[in-house]
Amino acid sequence: MAKSPEEEHPIKAFGWAARDTSGVLSPFNFSRRATGEKDVQFKILYCGICHTDLHYLKNEWGVTRYPVVPGHEIVGVVTEVGNKVEKFKIGDKVGVGCLAGSCQKCDNCSNDLENYCPRQIMTYGQLYHDGTMTYGGYSDFMVVDEHFAVRWPENLPMEAAPLLCAGITTYSPLKYYGLDKPGLHIGVVGLGGLGHMAVKFAKAFGANVTVISTSPGKKDEALQHLGADKFLLSTNPEQIQGTMSTLDGIIDTVSAAHPLLPLLGMLKPHGKLIMTGAIAKPLEMPVFPLIMGRKLIAGSCIGGMKETQEMLDFASKHNITPDVEVVAMDYVNTALERLLKSDVKYRFVLDIGKKSNST
Amino acid sequence: MAKSPEEEHPIKAFGWAARDTSGVLSPFNFSRRATGEKDVQFKILYCGICHTDLHYLKNEWGVTRYPVVPGHEIVGVVTEVGNKVEKFKIGDKVGVGCLAGSCQKCDNCSNDLENYCPRQIMTYGQLYHDGTMTYGGYSDFMVVDEHFAVRWPENLPMEAAPLLCAGITTYSPLKYYGLDKPGLHIGVVGLGGLGHMAVKFAKAFGANVTVISTSPGKKDEALQHLGADKFLLSTNPEQIQGTMSTLDGIIDTVSAAHPLLPLLGMLKPHGKLIMTGAIAKPLEMPVFPLIMGRKLIAGSCIGGMKETQEMLDFASKHNITPDVEVVAMDYVNTALERLLKSDVKYRFVLDIGKKSNST
Repeated sequence: MAKSPEEEHPIKAFGWAARDTSGVLSPFNFSRRATGEKDVQFKILYCGICHTDLHYLKNEWGVTRYPVVPGHEIVGVVTEVGNKVEKFKIGDKVGVGCLAGSCQKCDNCSNDLENYCPRQIMTYGQLYHDGTMTYGGYSDFMVVDEHFAVRWPENLPMEAAPLLCAGITTYSPLKYYGLDKPGLHIGVVGLGGLGHMAVKFAKAFGANVTVISTSPGKKDEALQHLGADKFLLSTNPEQIQGTMSTLDGIIDTVSAAHPLLPLLGMLKPHGKLIMTGAIAKPLEMPVFPLIMGRKLIAGSCIGGMKETQEMLDFASKHNITPDVEVVAMDYVNTALERLLKSDVKYRFVLDIGKKSNST
Repeated sequence: MAKSPEEEHPIKAFGWAARDTSGVLSPFNFSRRATGEKDVQFKILYCGICHTDLHYLKNEWGVTRYPVVPGHEIVGVVTEVGNKVEKFKIGDKVGVGCLAGSCQKCDNCSNDLENYCPRQIMTYGQLYHDGTMTYGGYSDFMVVDEHFAVRWPENLPMEAAPLLCAGITTYSPLKYYGLDKPGLHIGVVGLGGLGHMAVKFAKAFGANVTVISTSPGKKDEALQHLGADKFLLSTNPEQIQGTMSTLDGIIDTVSAAHPLLPLLGMLKPHGKLIMTGAIAKPLEMPVFPLIMGRKLIAGSCIGGMKETQEMLDFASKHNITPDVEVVAMDYVNTALERLLKSDVKYRFVLDIGKKSNST
């Protein structure tokens, strides 16, 4: 018979878990494995709340196994290292993102693309190599193979934890699809957790950035606070018309179904529309604009470990951090409700050590 | 008042035109411009029948202006050159494809991508710089700016005219999207005019080629005649399953709506699905496979003049020619009917000088 989450490993841990599709989190006693020879154990200080957590907590993708402890934007301080650990020592600041493991043998893994390994193991809700469930960062500490931990730059605030998912998810496609060259015109669709990071990275690469949104209220925010060059209301046909054939690339961060035709029209010939929002329903794809302008629609999913470190170092150098609202663990259910209504600028981050939001 | 097609230019010409959406062609007297200083005039010997001609003749895209003389896979022999022509002399073999003109100033034109110039002028059915209608290759001779003519290699048979559209349409994306490297696994969807050229070019680039078709009858043809390595019946779920995650790229030549999900599944991570068939109806695009495998869906439209010449020279060097059925002009309506039923291997080519198919 399978052991209970409290019993399967020797080390007691504490977190917050959802037990069913209500998605409501409550305190949860479980266990973490003893620190293996290639593992680092670390005390979690901050963990971002990602939109994926919401989908997962409510089993919207049909793959959730309860109880689930979410959280894959995790930053903390190393408390123990295995005897073969080379990258870290006790007291180092570390980050863990969406990945806790992969096969480390396939073509993708050999090319630093663990994020596309078919046997990748997510930080929460999947079975680890030893057959036990992975539990995420809404918890007090974690044990992870050092390969899947990144060094947290000294000058980067630890509450910038959302770089580990929202950051790398937008940084990676800008790099891979060649949208990181100075002077390019880049569109960003949607101004949430991912979108605001896409604006910051694109600006740091030297792009002229157009924010494309359905919310007029985001105009000042986009232009004055985030430093975008232009704001386009996607419900305004005249504004769309005025942007036709002007963009080299678009990072589309919206995770609800929406029309692609206007976005393809805004691209110059050879332009690239990159989807990063996990939209469950198929979208209507017009073929003519792809052919006539040699345009492409592509996807991108987080980044590999090497690129995640590179992104953090880039963020550190250019002072790029997510805009966050730091809250205590006991505020998590309220935060999730507010996130569902997009009532956050732009990412909640749990201060794991803080007992209550009212203190 | 606009002049009639017979009167607007000084030189009498003869071709076959459709007068209305029946798409039926009949003999047509019209005129061609006098040979300008940068023009070449040439006697047309062969002209391929492209599926686009069918769409256009029946005004399926809503842009046809009648009378229309179709044909954009044109090969002939130069009969006159303007005094500033540099590339050609009388007696040279020349080819003209889909383009008769472009702005020659924009970024695309400056980068040998006249095929993506927003002011490109198609070989038939569009207004030329002088405001007169362009007429295509189902006719006795033609006058064209030398920039839009290519040198026809000596050892290439002139009835290989379909290289000028079907050829370049498949060659160009294989090159642009990096699918021309030896050892890659390339899928080709649909085995018609475009598809059979895609197989030939991919094989010449050193690929392992899988033909994907709904017609079991095409298996022997694909494997034994065209030299494909594998044949996959797209109506057979087991065969699809066995091909999952094995292809680096797919050239999709089908011009009717069809599901993309199985094709995306057949791609390896980072694989590329290239659409070349002009599908009028939007297709259902699943987003998850794009994101999880960093895959892309893209389009491609013929090629620029420089690349078209390069493709012809490559075809000449590697003895790549389309499989054609050569017919006389008076067979054209029958040929179009048979093309509609895919009853041709793989391209009809009009022998313009041949009066009747029965002689």
